[in-house]
Amino acid sequence: MTESTIKVALLGAGTVGSQVARILTEDRDELAQRIGGTPELIGIAVRSVDTPRDYKAADALYTTDAESLIDRADVVIELTGGLEPAKTRILHALAAVKHVVSGNKALIAAHGAELMTAARQSGAQFSFEAAVAGAIPILRPLRDSLAGDHITRVLGIMNGTTNFMLDAMDARGADFDEVLAEAQRLGYAEADPTADVEGHDAAAKAAIVASLAFHSEFHIDDVHCTGISDITADDVTAAANDGYVIKLLSVCERDGEGVNIRVNPALIPRSHPLASVHDAYNAVFVESRDAGELMFYGPGAGGAPTASAVMGDFVSLARRSVLGGPGVPDYSYLGLAATSLSNVVSRYTVGLEVRDQLGVLAKIANVFAEHGVSIETMHQAKHREREDTAGDHATIRIVTHKTSNEDLRSTIAELTSLPTVYNVTSVIQVEG
Amino acid sequence: MTESTIKVALLGAGTVGSQVARILTEDRDELAQRIGGTPELIGIAVRSVDTPRDYKAADALYTTDAESLIDRADVVIELTGGLEPAKTRILHALAAVKHVVSGNKALIAAHGAELMTAARQSGAQFSFEAAVAGAIPILRPLRDSLAGDHITRVLGIMNGTTNFMLDAMDARGADFDEVLAEAQRLGYAEADPTADVEGHDAAAKAAIVASLAFHSEFHIDDVHCTGISDITADDVTAAANDGYVIKLLSVCERDGEGVNIRVNPALIPRSHPLASVHDAYNAVFVESRDAGELMFYGPGAGGAPTASAVMGDFVSLARRSVLGGPGVPDYSYLGLAATSLSNVVSRYTVGLEVRDQLGVLAKIANVFAEHGVSIETMHQAKHREREDTAGDHATIRIVTHKTSNEDLRSTIAELTSLPTVYNVTSVIQVEG
Repeated sequence: MTESTIKVALLGAGTVGSQVARILTEDRDELAQRIGGTPELIGIAVRSVDTPRDYKAADALYTTDAESLIDRADVVIELTGGLEPAKTRILHALAAVKHVVSGNKALIAAHGAELMTAARQSGAQFSFEAAVAGAIPILRPLRDSLAGDHITRVLGIMNGTTNFMLDAMDARGADFDEVLAEAQRLGYAEADPTADVEGHDAAAKAAIVASLAFHSEFHIDDVHCTGISDITADDVTAAANDGYVIKLLSVCERDGEGVNIRVNPALIPRSHPLASVHDAYNAVFVESRDAGELMFYGPGAGGAPTASAVMGDFVSLARRSVLGGPGVPDYSYLGLAATSLSNVVSRYTVGLEVRDQLGVLAKIANVFAEHGVSIETMHQAKHREREDTAGDHATIRIVTHKTSNEDLRSTIAELTSLPTVYNVTSVIQVEG
Repeated sequence: MTESTIKVALLGAGTVGSQVARILTEDRDELAQRIGGTPELIGIAVRSVDTPRDYKAADALYTTDAESLIDRADVVIELTGGLEPAKTRILHALAAVKHVVSGNKALIAAHGAELMTAARQSGAQFSFEAAVAGAIPILRPLRDSLAGDHITRVLGIMNGTTNFMLDAMDARGADFDEVLAEAQRLGYAEADPTADVEGHDAAAKAAIVASLAFHSEFHIDDVHCTGISDITADDVTAAANDGYVIKLLSVCERDGEGVNIRVNPALIPRSHPLASVHDAYNAVFVESRDAGELMFYGPGAGGAPTASAVMGDFVSLARRSVLGGPGVPDYSYLGLAATSLSNVVSRYTVGLEVRDQLGVLAKIANVFAEHGVSIETMHQAKHREREDTAGDHATIRIVTHKTSNEDLRSTIAELTSLPTVYNVTSVIQVEG
């Protein structure tokens, strides 16, 4: 059973690639027993052979010639990131019936459907568990374990950096700039934190998850995305006082017309399982017709955890290759469309700074009513002096019943135009 | 792609079987797209055709002749439960190269290795995700997603009934008999609750999980099992005061000699992800070398959730059958042994009722020290009058550092023999 050899080409030797090289080298004998054939790392394609690495494989393995390495391999593990040359290389490998494992989130969110089609046409296997939520097995459960069920909604905490930041704001009352600086100091956030903080990283993952959960083709451009840079310590405290915690949520939701995919800050009740996802951990909460509510929790990033996901894909696909028979291709048979934000029906919290005068609450309540937005709770949170306005003013916090995004937006637009409203300080969805 | 037909024989039409019949009937067209072939439910084997069912399929489908139904099928879904005739029927089906999905926990915990060997020899596929933790996808992640990693420990809440009971005791300070009666009233517990309360149900699941996590053959007899019937409201309150919650934990743990598999009540810190598993939910917490800490959470039982797991297995296996090529057989290549309870190294809490006299604390601390058990905290929790003893007495609560089960037991034996110790009220492990 262990007589065949599986030649592995590794593209990339960064944080994750180094760990994959280590596991392929150190665990070769045990992997052989699991696969039924011996994996042989035949080369590691890098941009420069001389760069220092976390794990150093045999010198002879490093090469800058990715193309000829791919040609000699049975399986290609692509961990370079970015769109090109990764896409061209993967298409080249698949066309030559080499199985491919990729952890390239940006590439799959942008061109996943094209790559899956290429795999299906050639009969090669293509897996990318590591592209979403690091080590958390989520794509395989969606594809296989829930293959006989109907998923209705996926709520995910899919970015560890922002979860670390929001969790610190919640735990300590710290403000945004302070926790961002801390995240950067600890290496959770990049010097330019835009991709994390503005939700782009989570949006790429949401597009991939939505594609598999709803058997349709979605791209990162289909994701409505709002980051956390407007979230203040006051927002977090107000949420906490009401029994909520603020998370950067990825939501993929079946609606009447298709699938709504969005990434935005949202309040979730403290009793919801997602509320207890702390630090840089990720979690994906799945709602389905038959299974009900499931949650998958784990480290969303990091070299070794992500390498574990890559190796899980590799062993599964190598096992299939040794056994013979094709892999299971991905079909997007439903062809659902991505829907607009105006399709979203949700609860919202709205924070307002208003002039503290008789009748102002009634006037504001009236604006909500006129736009068909029903108020669940409304309270004057506190008073304070503001130097830039004449006289006292009050802070009002409203939680709405479920309402359409369109009605909510027209409500906010009218509130903003009222002379008694100084400022709309926050508008945040409530989910869960 | 959708030209072939997959003939399905369903054995059993209870809570789960009825739901599977419903899904196979109502979702046939969409399942056909997912599988690449049309599933056709050709019959449902039952003990009596006339029993009322949750979901009633066409009358002509019900039969008492399971054997001839199996002979006409491509795939057999076994949901009858119990060892026989389920085992004989599954072996018969596998020998005739019919793929089998089973949700039969008792059978797989007792004879899983034999059934897997039969499947491997015939080339038929054999899946049993529904046998563990209802809808929660745990076996497939262990087998496939973590296929390139090394699992070091699995901690699971694998029985919904006992979790419901312990959660109610924790939330309301209720005592054991009260929550058992409530669980029975709500249908969570059977009239004879032994299988749940004494941990036998959780032990069967632990044996299956340990087999897949550690690539070895384990049976229910390998599991050291203690139930929750000795857990009192006082134990739960004392744990809560120290920042812990008591759960019935299934622990599968690699140790120097093999794998220790046990089910017992244990204290876990309230900050641990398993502590927020409430009501009748289940969760499986996996610790691995590379992925780190993962958790899988969801409903552990119920007709529709368990049917979702059965259907996930069915679609995956039918897809493979249509594509051609063998399924991935399970190998127990490691052949690890189950180890004895004396191998367990853990922290413990010990509750004592002692005579309240000078020097008693020192005497007790000395007993621990003599047996090599290091004390982390020791405090006199409260005083109260006891009518059956002369004079005051005190309640002492000790948390140990990590110690061997053997040293702990010899400590307890000596404490019990001391005249100043009235009673050892509880000895509970601390995990997580």
